[in-house]
Amino acid sequence: MRDQYHEELDAISDQLVEMTRLVSSAMSRASTALADADLSLAESVISKDEQVDRLQRDLEQRAFDLLARQQPVATDLRIIVTSLRMSADIERMGDLARHVAKIARRRYPQSAIPAEIRGTVVEMAGIAIRMAAKVGSVIASKDVASALELESDDDEMDKMHRELYTELLEPSWTHGIEAAVDVTLVGRYYERFADHAVSVARRVVFLVTGEPADEYVPEP
Amino acid sequence: MRDQYHEELDAISDQLVEMTRLVSSAMSRASTALADADLSLAESVISKDEQVDRLQRDLEQRAFDLLARQQPVATDLRIIVTSLRMSADIERMGDLARHVAKIARRRYPQSAIPAEIRGTVVEMAGIAIRMAAKVGSVIASKDVASALELESDDDEMDKMHRELYTELLEPSWTHGIEAAVDVTLVGRYYERFADHAVSVARRVVFLVTGEPADEYVPEP
Repeated sequence: MRDQYHEELDAISDQLVEMTRLVSSAMSRASTALADADLSLAESVISKDEQVDRLQRDLEQRAFDLLARQQPVATDLRIIVTSLRMSADIERMGDLARHVAKIARRRYPQSAIPAEIRGTVVEMAGIAIRMAAKVGSVIASKDVASALELESDDDEMDKMHRELYTELLEPSWTHGIEAAVDVTLVGRYYERFADHAVSVARRVVFLVTGEPADEYVPEP
Repeated sequence: MRDQYHEELDAISDQLVEMTRLVSSAMSRASTALADADLSLAESVISKDEQVDRLQRDLEQRAFDLLARQQPVATDLRIIVTSLRMSADIERMGDLARHVAKIARRRYPQSAIPAEIRGTVVEMAGIAIRMAAKVGSVIASKDVASALELESDDDEMDKMHRELYTELLEPSWTHGIEAAVDVTLVGRYYERFADHAVSVARRVVFLVTGEPADEYVPEP
């Protein structure tokens, strides 16, 4: 009985990893759709987000059943409650990928991203996709050092986000208000995507060390 | 023992209501700070957000202790797990009020909101504040009809949000890119604030009826 229980805990963890894989892929495809003004790719990201939502609902139900049936305490209780939180963060990352895809769709057949800022947007997309993949590994490995790496990825994201605004506010910006609105929103979506990845990583740190990520001091 | 337990459940509910009161007030003050370019008001919203964060951490600890000590099942378990979710939504509403205040602070001594769109922004602020107050009442009363009203408030918010973009994209817009970026972000913050209020209301509907809000059919 106890074994089956731990199998179910593992299944929840596997499902979280699978969700990170899906949202990483969704953000990757949404970013390509945005850069290439690829309508059908954008559409596919938008319609497939339902998969992530379904996985999350399923995970919630499993977690809830496990709480009700097994009445876990201490660490196991903390793992289950924390998994619920993590699933909410990852589900939201899926929504943000869908939002990026929607901007690509709205501007089609034009690209929403003017050529001179494409480099920055591609870089933000790269950081976001990498962070989603890393956070999947962190959930699987429970490796605190890797979890803490997400913090510096997020600093990198914030730096690129500021860079994006700088480019937007150059006097040489000639793409008007509509493009500025799109770029503002896209920048915000990538930044929030990274925030949620960091939030998941911090929860892993807390689960493993019992201390909040910002108070945890790694061994020298 | 059982009585103390239900007192603790009530205390969690009271704390959620108190959190909605704080975030409603924060959004109200942030919106005034934005409209009047009032720096000290903006600063106070930014520094007081910590209060909401503290309440949320406290609520999480209580909920967690209750799960560990009382091992609730069925409805009680659902109430506690759902309260954790609601607290995360409300905490995020506080963050969004703080974000509005930060835009007011960044543009000081100018106002971030040009005169011709002030009406729309004030209206969005009004809907947001009203929704936060309503959701507090809904948590306290568990009244499904009031919870469902939040859906039409949110439709109203979405309508004003579209209106804001229309105004922003008028050829007569003369306030440049920087103001457009601020208005885009402010609009997004109000819209997300409303989304979180709806999310809390839907959770109340689910707790009371056992059905998702979008599938619940009220008596004629």
